[in-house]
Amino acid sequence: MNKQIQSDMIVGRNPVLEAIKAGRPINKIFILRGEREGTARVIEAMAMERGFVVQHVAKAKLDGLTGGGTHQGVIAMASSKQYSDVEDIFNIAKERNEPEFIVILDEVEDPHNLGSIIRSCEAVGVHGVIIPKRRSAALTPIVGKSSAGAIEYIAVARVPNLSETMKQLKKRGVWIIGADAGGGIPFTECDMKGSIALVVGGEGKGLGRLVKETCDFVVNLPMKGKIESLNASVAAGVMLYEALRQRMA
Amino acid sequence: MNKQIQSDMIVGRNPVLEAIKAGRPINKIFILRGEREGTARVIEAMAMERGFVVQHVAKAKLDGLTGGGTHQGVIAMASSKQYSDVEDIFNIAKERNEPEFIVILDEVEDPHNLGSIIRSCEAVGVHGVIIPKRRSAALTPIVGKSSAGAIEYIAVARVPNLSETMKQLKKRGVWIIGADAGGGIPFTECDMKGSIALVVGGEGKGLGRLVKETCDFVVNLPMKGKIESLNASVAAGVMLYEALRQRMA
Repeated sequence: MNKQIQSDMIVGRNPVLEAIKAGRPINKIFILRGEREGTARVIEAMAMERGFVVQHVAKAKLDGLTGGGTHQGVIAMASSKQYSDVEDIFNIAKERNEPEFIVILDEVEDPHNLGSIIRSCEAVGVHGVIIPKRRSAALTPIVGKSSAGAIEYIAVARVPNLSETMKQLKKRGVWIIGADAGGGIPFTECDMKGSIALVVGGEGKGLGRLVKETCDFVVNLPMKGKIESLNASVAAGVMLYEALRQRMA
Repeated sequence: MNKQIQSDMIVGRNPVLEAIKAGRPINKIFILRGEREGTARVIEAMAMERGFVVQHVAKAKLDGLTGGGTHQGVIAMASSKQYSDVEDIFNIAKERNEPEFIVILDEVEDPHNLGSIIRSCEAVGVHGVIIPKRRSAALTPIVGKSSAGAIEYIAVARVPNLSETMKQLKKRGVWIIGADAGGGIPFTECDMKGSIALVVGGEGKGLGRLVKETCDFVVNLPMKGKIESLNASVAAGVMLYEALRQRMA
């Protein structure tokens, strides 16, 4: 059962380019009148080739659509990006013939962080991302833009109860590894080669109590200085590349 | 020779707290009238203890100081944070009795990325950060806030010519390792245990030609998906933690 997200506006050159490349159905593309920048021209050429409607508009129109946010002269109106199911994520792992590599985001509420984490997940070959229905950023245009278009290529499932979903994953043989500043073992000492789900918390909060208790392992990033935590998307990226390093070895 | 930066306003709860803890001389602290949040109260108590002037003000005053940016009810006016020299960075390494661990930022122009990278540098025990005088974000209040206060604890040197400084570092036995999406060896295969300077480029641009040519090694982060790069601060964080992993082993 897929669910629509509210927004179907894709903003910025790279996100629009990636949406076209990913084969997302697009209703219309607005390009700034007189725009001569390279990527914008590539977008226009690809759009024409695929028969999408391209409309050249004034800056005020683009500014109006984004409420004054940056758009780099390109906005696409697309069919809504759909949320996946957890089952879809298992199927993707099966198709790639790889042990599950899943990311669970516990209350990442900053859309820039969510986008940046999705971008890192796509880069390391994660099969899918699971977010809770409440207290999480949704897949808005800001998330799409911060993901540099990665949102087009990765399954994102939204679940009503994160710890319940974690228990189901455990029953199916997935090891749940939680990242938490305040405890556990150093992240490089944790085996991340098999079927795993990495759980990452939101900025400045770490993992919720119930979520943390449901993890099989809790790992931390060593902090050698005086500051107590990293930016949430940086912490996620570091963990993801350690997992990739182990899985490629 | 130290140089003043223009701004001496520290914005937000954590940055102000870290500035006080780091012993930075503070002229005055503005706290939102009626503010009852925990960290704000700790700041007030610590400020009183140190004899700093604390002034309770209306929200409009704080909004005015930040031009409408978020301030979390706390702003401090401090003596200017000073830039360090490259020599200071060598001295810090010597004091800690460690081989040099330096980060060079090639045209990181986004202040949020600069702040986030400085935060990661502090977390892994980097001795100092080198930025170019031109085409780089300077140490503004936004950088301080994005660094979560880490800017108080790390030496930042500004140099007129990055490749010239890199050559001087090489003469002093520092290996220069450049991170670039388009080439080199996988980052985990590069030895980062000795005296090193990691060079990281700005968002979406990679390293400049001259800077790249001056590197001893060029390394890349494996990208397994369709997106071609990571967020600059995530890429820097991943590289820094790989260096730390090797240096702790």
